Amino acid sequence: MSTLCVPSQVPPVAEDCEQLHKAFSGKGKKFRNAFDFTDSDNRLIDRWGTNEDLIISILGRRNASQRKLIRHCYAETYGEDLLKALDKELSSDFERVVLVSVLDPPERDAYLANEATKKWTASNQVLVEIACTRSPKQLNLAKEAYHARFKKSLEEDVAYHTTGDFRKLLVPLVSTYRYSGDEVDLRLAKSEAKILHQKIAAKEYSCDDVIRILTTRSKAQINATLNQYKNDFGNDVNKDLKADPKDEFLALLRATVKCLVFPEKYFEKVLRLAMNKLGTDEWALTRVVVTRAEVDMKTIKELYEKRSSVPLDKAIAKDTHGDYEKMLLTLIGVV
Amino acid sequence: MSTLCVPSQVPPVAEDCEQLHKAFSGKGKKFRNAFDFTDSDNRLIDRWGTNEDLIISILGRRNASQRKLIRHCYAETYGEDLLKALDKELSSDFERVVLVSVLDPPERDAYLANEATKKWTASNQVLVEIACTRSPKQLNLAKEAYHARFKKSLEEDVAYHTTGDFRKLLVPLVSTYRYSGDEVDLRLAKSEAKILHQKIAAKEYSCDDVIRILTTRSKAQINATLNQYKNDFGNDVNKDLKADPKDEFLALLRATVKCLVFPEKYFEKVLRLAMNKLGTDEWALTRVVVTRAEVDMKTIKELYEKRSSVPLDKAIAKDTHGDYEKMLLTLIGVV
Repeated sequence: MSTLCVPSQVPPVAEDCEQLHKAFSGKGKKFRNAFDFTDSDNRLIDRWGTNEDLIISILGRRNASQRKLIRHCYAETYGEDLLKALDKELSSDFERVVLVSVLDPPERDAYLANEATKKWTASNQVLVEIACTRSPKQLNLAKEAYHARFKKSLEEDVAYHTTGDFRKLLVPLVSTYRYSGDEVDLRLAKSEAKILHQKIAAKEYSCDDVIRILTTRSKAQINATLNQYKNDFGNDVNKDLKADPKDEFLALLRATVKCLVFPEKYFEKVLRLAMNKLGTDEWALTRVVVTRAEVDMKTIKELYEKRSSVPLDKAIAKDTHGDYEKMLLTLIGVV
Repeated sequence: MSTLCVPSQVPPVAEDCEQLHKAFSGKGKKFRNAFDFTDSDNRLIDRWGTNEDLIISILGRRNASQRKLIRHCYAETYGEDLLKALDKELSSDFERVVLVSVLDPPERDAYLANEATKKWTASNQVLVEIACTRSPKQLNLAKEAYHARFKKSLEEDVAYHTTGDFRKLLVPLVSTYRYSGDEVDLRLAKSEAKILHQKIAAKEYSCDDVIRILTTRSKAQINATLNQYKNDFGNDVNKDLKADPKDEFLALLRATVKCLVFPEKYFEKVLRLAMNKLGTDEWALTRVVVTRAEVDMKTIKELYEKRSSVPLDKAIAKDTHGDYEKMLLTLIGVV
């Protein structure tokens, strides 16, 4: 469930563009009343008086297709890509959360994946996240957007930038067009649960069969296989994949399993780790809030509060500040 | 270039359906004149007098989108899938060529690929063919059709039915959504040509790098890499991949290279081998003629005649007979 609060009466796209344009030229506040621009409940405008507030009140309260229309209309009207305009006006974490919000989801996934291929192992998790928490169709759209933007395929970049076991897992994860139906073959689930158990018990974590099952079967089938695993062998597969907690490949396998069968739980943990240390991991925070706000952030919030005994908005407010904080809180539906 | 001869004046879809329906009920000939059904040039009807001829004159002379409309209209009008009606009326090789022609190209590729996953090594070439000679978008459509028809993904079936080096090559071949642009990175081509040469010289044919390059790079990039290979090391890569002519994995690698960079030459050879022996390989003949008639059969015919010193239609006429022969010749634009 989404946490995005789109006003019940969304202003015409042209008006949103006009307001954004004014916000950039510093006239946002001065002219706002004259042009009778109001948020659906008048609240934001009364409370916040800066141009950044105006940007948040628009871009933080529109869904993906509305933002796409705004970006299109803005380019038509002012002859400039909205992203460029934002890039000139904003800075640091606030800039990044706004820019990533404005990107259309497939384009955003392409961007996030490309960034991940440029960095080292820690970023591999982002690739797993994109490959496994999006629907097969969404992943295909992201791959198309990757072609359009980078003039290469996601597959070749992932294959080129990884080696060994990491490549063996990540390339098929981003490549396969999984079946997305709900049908489950229980006999197959039983036999593949057995295979997984044998291989994991023998510590053959990167063997062909483990990779094949996790990278090619449908999510429904994998879920059935892992339920069977627990029934027949007593443990969650992820518990058995924790033999060496410091092993990075095992961590990636666990992330894969979680992203495939319980994505909300995976994202809850990413948020928890992003804030549960001395420095905040703003990039992880931004990524999860922006990509999940319209998808399952409601459940993620509930899981977070249950697990951390503090509401997500309180945790975010503690770890962030200013416009960045406001945008995040707007996206998770608190402000 | 296509060899399919679609009449300049195609009858309305409803009329095509009516004629097909009559052909099935054995009334095709009797009523044909009464209903004033004519081929664009009246030729087929004068020469051929059976119901099969009528079927050929319609289904052998319509393109994929026209056949799709016919199938749709037939189901609407007569409450029966055209494929089922054909299945009841026709038999043996003629039945197969007609049925495969009627399938929409993505559906047909899904069917061919699924058949291939059920058989052993020789059929792996069909998987290479579908993965490498279709455009990346066409391959995606075939994978969607596979989901719809078989309630599974092509990837999982290929991964499940193969092992070892064959799996290592085939799974990424059917999985990757290659970039389809023409851009070429010549520096990369040079470095990857060198990698290929080193690995092939060391007989490491199934090593990660060879597989990675052939399965993830765009066709344009692979072409540049193989040109560079020839420039720098003297041989066509396929010559160097012929160290052991009996090795089935090497044969599959050569088929991959050919399908990626010179598909017409690949198909010419499939046709040549299908007819160049004691028994004819009707399935290969049917597959190539039906799948390429609307794509590049004109070039394939030219290459065939050049290589075999006999025109393709003469070779087909020698190796086949009856309605099956007529349908094939119609598809290659000879009758």
